[in-house]
Amino acid sequence: MKKIKRAIISVSDKSNLKKILRNLKKFKIKLISSGGTYKEITRLGFNCEKISNYTNTAEILNGRVKTLHPKVHAGILSKRKDKSHIKDLRKNNFNEIDLVIVNFYPFEKNLETSKNHEKIIENIDIGGPTMVRAAAKNYNDVTVITNPQQYDNLINELNKFNGKTSLRFRQEMSENAFGETAFYDSVIANYFTKVTCNEFPKKKLIFGNLVDKLRYGENPHQEAAIYSIKKKLSLNQIGGKKLSYNNYNDIFSALLISKSLPKGKGTVIVKHTNPCGISINNNKIKSYRLALSCDPISAFGGVVSFNFKINESLAKEINKMFLEVVVANGFEKKALKVLKNKKNLRIINANNLNKENIINIKSNFDTFLIQTPDTKVFNKKNFKVVSKVKPSRKILKNLIFAFNISKYVKSNAVVLVKDETTVGIGSGQPSRLDSCKIAIDKMKKFQEINNSNEIVAASDAFFPFVDGLESLIQSGVCAVIQPSGSINDKEIIKFADQTGTILVFSKTRHFNH
Amino acid sequence: MKKIKRAIISVSDKSNLKKILRNLKKFKIKLISSGGTYKEITRLGFNCEKISNYTNTAEILNGRVKTLHPKVHAGILSKRKDKSHIKDLRKNNFNEIDLVIVNFYPFEKNLETSKNHEKIIENIDIGGPTMVRAAAKNYNDVTVITNPQQYDNLINELNKFNGKTSLRFRQEMSENAFGETAFYDSVIANYFTKVTCNEFPKKKLIFGNLVDKLRYGENPHQEAAIYSIKKKLSLNQIGGKKLSYNNYNDIFSALLISKSLPKGKGTVIVKHTNPCGISINNNKIKSYRLALSCDPISAFGGVVSFNFKINESLAKEINKMFLEVVVANGFEKKALKVLKNKKNLRIINANNLNKENIINIKSNFDTFLIQTPDTKVFNKKNFKVVSKVKPSRKILKNLIFAFNISKYVKSNAVVLVKDETTVGIGSGQPSRLDSCKIAIDKMKKFQEINNSNEIVAASDAFFPFVDGLESLIQSGVCAVIQPSGSINDKEIIKFADQTGTILVFSKTRHFNH
Repeated sequence: MKKIKRAIISVSDKSNLKKILRNLKKFKIKLISSGGTYKEITRLGFNCEKISNYTNTAEILNGRVKTLHPKVHAGILSKRKDKSHIKDLRKNNFNEIDLVIVNFYPFEKNLETSKNHEKIIENIDIGGPTMVRAAAKNYNDVTVITNPQQYDNLINELNKFNGKTSLRFRQEMSENAFGETAFYDSVIANYFTKVTCNEFPKKKLIFGNLVDKLRYGENPHQEAAIYSIKKKLSLNQIGGKKLSYNNYNDIFSALLISKSLPKGKGTVIVKHTNPCGISINNNKIKSYRLALSCDPISAFGGVVSFNFKINESLAKEINKMFLEVVVANGFEKKALKVLKNKKNLRIINANNLNKENIINIKSNFDTFLIQTPDTKVFNKKNFKVVSKVKPSRKILKNLIFAFNISKYVKSNAVVLVKDETTVGIGSGQPSRLDSCKIAIDKMKKFQEINNSNEIVAASDAFFPFVDGLESLIQSGVCAVIQPSGSINDKEIIKFADQTGTILVFSKTRHFNH
Repeated sequence: MKKIKRAIISVSDKSNLKKILRNLKKFKIKLISSGGTYKEITRLGFNCEKISNYTNTAEILNGRVKTLHPKVHAGILSKRKDKSHIKDLRKNNFNEIDLVIVNFYPFEKNLETSKNHEKIIENIDIGGPTMVRAAAKNYNDVTVITNPQQYDNLINELNKFNGKTSLRFRQEMSENAFGETAFYDSVIANYFTKVTCNEFPKKKLIFGNLVDKLRYGENPHQEAAIYSIKKKLSLNQIGGKKLSYNNYNDIFSALLISKSLPKGKGTVIVKHTNPCGISINNNKIKSYRLALSCDPISAFGGVVSFNFKINESLAKEINKMFLEVVVANGFEKKALKVLKNKKNLRIINANNLNKENIINIKSNFDTFLIQTPDTKVFNKKNFKVVSKVKPSRKILKNLIFAFNISKYVKSNAVVLVKDETTVGIGSGQPSRLDSCKIAIDKMKKFQEINNSNEIVAASDAFFPFVDGLESLIQSGVCAVIQPSGSINDKEIIKFADQTGTILVFSKTRHFNH
């Protein structure tokens, strides 16, 4: 237990200041402060000593140097039971400082609101983090508070222990403090690397704010949590059970595709992070029904994501089957009422989520791979038709749709498409031929194909041999798009021509593991 | 361009100090230093002013407070062109400090070598990071050097610009500096959360050292790099082409399985991050041949990983087919010579890699999910035999092997096993029935099954309906292990009994997406 006699306060975020001051007064804790905090404390009617008075040194450089003084830092850093430390303090006429309440210049907030580099740099706090780090190091004797949200905890602690704090509390606050300073400097470091376009600095920091501890991870014997690089999640849950790890994983997989589709007409259904149905159609119900038709069995218990606002009739259609999660860009009032009839159905508004700031990190053992996201969108300019038969506009549209979808299917990926709707998805196979077969089997199981001149196929990487192409053509595919790059490319073109198949080389690969 | 007149030096890592001092002397730069660095500088025969002399304040608290003084920090932080700053310095008789050479107390190194909490805490540097942060903030006027590896760059800069540094150089060093301070505090924060067993603190920091920039990411239009939380990679490449992003990804997928198998007898083959063959056998060549036999077509161009040392005869066997990467726990000299005959073959020694410190992070948009790794190893004590027919010891051994493998196969996962060798792997499907079919098709394609009483199957999660089980039994599977938990469990047990199938409930789920 450590009695608190003297505190230094320097806060950029002045919320709840009055409340904490009232409690510090109650326990007769002497206050030292500087700059704007000093002004605010006296304005609120509390006694406080100015730092310049305390150190007998003027605040200089427009406030850049205020607290960086031995009297302050010896007061924070001295070990209370170390005789030489006690002697040093006495000799220099320094006092022990037992409590540090500091929060930093709002560097991150400034980043969001300002483009002015000088102003941003000026908001790098030097004195604050130094006091916090010193106090956190010396948590054995000193309490450090870095966030107004911790005031209540401190007040409880002081009341419980009559003006003292427990070691356990001080250690917890110290842990939080180093989290704050590490996070603060990570944001700064990240800003610098962005300014210089250095994606891969020597020291890489990935930083996140805890959004929620989850019930468990992918499996019940794993613990898990979700973090955001922002202050809070861009998703908004408006109904249903708490989201699980696997829910989040599936929701984001679905949204990555949803956000890539033309606005206002796309439906995506995901199960086990893989899409099992995607369609774009101007008619909302049709878009949903078509996506569902690709694999209605897998869709059971899945996540459905719409890149538009859900209306009442669509809500009724959705409720006809069991889904775990519905995601949309908003919900009409009546639609929400219908969906909420299913108590467990998780309802997510993803209107505020955007594709900026995507992190792409893959952890393995004690390493992680980082890459820039695969943002390449394939369009009419990128391809080369290599077969004798040329694609119609409609076929081309479907080929481009299929190829852009293949980016989101785990490799090896083969996607069969009709009318901008997936009709077969083969995913996650070590052999490309197997992915072809899976896609074909799906199509045969769930589709009635009347006109075989309307099915197109996309492959996320090249066909190493003719066999994959052959299996697709045999099952009725009329046009195929693939990156090319195999030593067998010529043979593959030849085979396409022999069978009257349209073959397009995209020259872009979309591996996704 | 900024002329450097005065430098402050405080280094824990004193390597290459003489070289940089010689160059600073050449440009008549005045030196200030403290503690051990001061001693070393004078020992090396260079002039240097003691910090206590410079600030006219004694070093106190056994060195805890040395540089935390306004004279030092105003010297670093003053804007050289700001009239009020110039005035403040003059009034206080402070001087500009143009160069800060500081590296920190070796907190991380101490963590590795010491278990003494007090000693570890004492190694949290307060003064060093403060000077570095101040200099990095004021990079417009001040140069900051945080690592002996940067000395040569500084020397080049000083020589090129006659004792001056360029803004570009100062900005680059500032970027590095904030990377260092963020990393330093992340390691400290991480230590505190480990002490308190707080897996999921409010602010989470993932930190890594750049190991290598890669040619590209999963696809050529993506940039990528690999980082390690350690100073260097635990893998050792001893031959072949440079590793790509996809190589690393596959190698780690393979190693996660390899390291889980009984020591000295396991072979794993991976393609597109999914295993396509796993076997354990005391005979090294047999272990490899059996793993290969599961899907020799997919294995083409794959990654093979052995959890033992490779000898010459195995090396010859390996060379019979095209593989991208060979991983092992060491190589006999003659084996290495054989493998190196294939110039492109990447040869990796994974002997030093261990399963400690596994990070499990999954990034999605601006969020990331963190979970504790799935370390649960299934063994004889965990299961419940629910069928009338009971498994023999051999069948049980194979069931446990199959279930432990299912953990590493992308969900939905179905694994068929015979003689502790996979004979069919169905992975990454939204429907469990489809994963069954894929596994069965593989088996039919590559295996000659003479005795149908030897094939067992594992499913990573429960069967929702009888259909999956039915398809396995029809193809000759005699025993099935699965977690249980479906509302149809009773029906599934009934079906197993009707068909004389062994059914075991593992009660553990192994989702892996």
